[in-house]
Amino acid sequence: MQGRVWVPSILGFYATTQPMPEASCRPYPALRPGDRVAVVAPSGPFEQAAFDAGLAAVSNRYHVELDPGIAARWRYLAGDDARRLAELAAALADPQIKAVFCARGGYGALRLLAHLEGAPITPKALVGFSDICALHAVLGRAGLVSVHGPVLTQLGALPTATHERLFTLLESSLPAQPLHGGSTFVGGTAEGPLVGGNLATLTALLGTPYSPCFDGAVLLLEEVGERPYRLDRMWTQLALAGVLRRIRGIVLGSFTRCEERDADFTSIDVLRDLAIATGLPCAAGFPIGHGELNEPVPLGVRVRLDASQRSLRFLESAAR
Amino acid sequence: MQGRVWVPSILGFYATTQPMPEASCRPYPALRPGDRVAVVAPSGPFEQAAFDAGLAAVSNRYHVELDPGIAARWRYLAGDDARRLAELAAALADPQIKAVFCARGGYGALRLLAHLEGAPITPKALVGFSDICALHAVLGRAGLVSVHGPVLTQLGALPTATHERLFTLLESSLPAQPLHGGSTFVGGTAEGPLVGGNLATLTALLGTPYSPCFDGAVLLLEEVGERPYRLDRMWTQLALAGVLRRIRGIVLGSFTRCEERDADFTSIDVLRDLAIATGLPCAAGFPIGHGELNEPVPLGVRVRLDASQRSLRFLESAAR
Repeated sequence: MQGRVWVPSILGFYATTQPMPEASCRPYPALRPGDRVAVVAPSGPFEQAAFDAGLAAVSNRYHVELDPGIAARWRYLAGDDARRLAELAAALADPQIKAVFCARGGYGALRLLAHLEGAPITPKALVGFSDICALHAVLGRAGLVSVHGPVLTQLGALPTATHERLFTLLESSLPAQPLHGGSTFVGGTAEGPLVGGNLATLTALLGTPYSPCFDGAVLLLEEVGERPYRLDRMWTQLALAGVLRRIRGIVLGSFTRCEERDADFTSIDVLRDLAIATGLPCAAGFPIGHGELNEPVPLGVRVRLDASQRSLRFLESAAR
Repeated sequence: MQGRVWVPSILGFYATTQPMPEASCRPYPALRPGDRVAVVAPSGPFEQAAFDAGLAAVSNRYHVELDPGIAARWRYLAGDDARRLAELAAALADPQIKAVFCARGGYGALRLLAHLEGAPITPKALVGFSDICALHAVLGRAGLVSVHGPVLTQLGALPTATHERLFTLLESSLPAQPLHGGSTFVGGTAEGPLVGGNLATLTALLGTPYSPCFDGAVLLLEEVGERPYRLDRMWTQLALAGVLRRIRGIVLGSFTRCEERDADFTSIDVLRDLAIATGLPCAAGFPIGHGELNEPVPLGVRVRLDASQRSLRFLESAAR
């Protein structure tokens, strides 16, 4: 069936002996104002007021569809696995749904991955970050561009300029506007597909068939609420897993609430030392993550990182 | 050189196409009171008073050797990687050192793994838990029994009976006395080598060449200070990585300070549901971990878990 892709099965993954190509992912069909979009909650339960604020912003632009059970809560999940899976799989498969916005991160997408195997996806934008990176990895493996950007509970509190950037990213067939970071950890330039996102979510995929393909990539990392030794542990796991040998450069976003109390070092000190040890071009302080800014960026499109100039340029468009 | 083994190199690991055999590991040479032992700090820095209490207990039994820099502190590490590596590698290689006791867990052993590759080890007991499980995995891959037991900063606060159990485990060529848990999650029995320890440390090894061999194993898990959704995330990563398909049974120790505030569920509720989903024999509440008890157990020896009876029997001796 044309215009559909399937999530590659584990068997196919294990049968692959060649590294995956560095080719860019397929752009999603460009949205138009008024298009039908879905809002889903595949991870944690959300606070209603923050959700409503984000929903209002999206509803102003597109026709939003919601599962009536989306506000469910089961322990730390937005309802049980069956509910979240059915909601997500239906939204991904439906050719009438032009984009899927995630309500919140937290935790829970990992529990759905095995059940998404072989599921049909009509190419479309999937918007979210943090725990949602587990789903970006699924779309990446299916060869599709995915949008690392605000979840609904965050969107309402973000500047209108960020809303505009998100809508432009979904609707325009021009490459996204460049972003700028705050500091250079290791100078130099690197080109490759942008891959990654939340550090804890990426390390939770290591050793599983759902880890993204890092070959030749520019790696994006951000984090929230992880103490410096935990950042070190996760980064070291990426290193021992060979990920840092396969990538070309590193873009660091926000590391929010990652400080140790009463310490004579910061999380940035730790990250800088880890970055320097890789020798890869690396710039930090990009407005991406759990901080006051979270500029949307397309995963799977080729980017050019100039770490010396602290700039990230997008070489391809996310939408077509 | 007889009586020495080498840590298998990564190249050897990658060349292996067969799963490792389920054979038990080699017992370590039995200690005698007065033997030379080393105390090392390969992970985090320690609080002096707690360390001294543990050191006194060990010094009463054996002749302890210490690196003069052992009390170093660099950020969250007991000195820089070079210091910790030199101290550990010297202790593992020295044929005069009959056992190695670890000062504390925390974090840091992971940073040493790549540098231990190909290092010589004179077979001996390595005692510790938590972050030290990264080193137990190294000894396990080298085919050696290793001791999941108290670190020095914990030992002084543990009952004398636990000290006795530890000394007996190091000195006797009889199998260790059985242990008993508190509840059955899934009934049934399982036999295999005992593998595992700290959940966070084990998941930090996934996707790297340093992950232990889980084939046919009885898996031991314990944790401290991880919220229920994090226990779920780590357990789910073990599942997605295929670990839970390869093991035969699960032994759960303490899950200390793992509760969510104001939650209507406990970490035990979460673990029970995850255990039931595996269908594997599983008993919980064994006196192993970061709680008030931490009974030493040998990793790499065959055990028999009777989850219905909540008993763990040791079928082979740890020392010869």
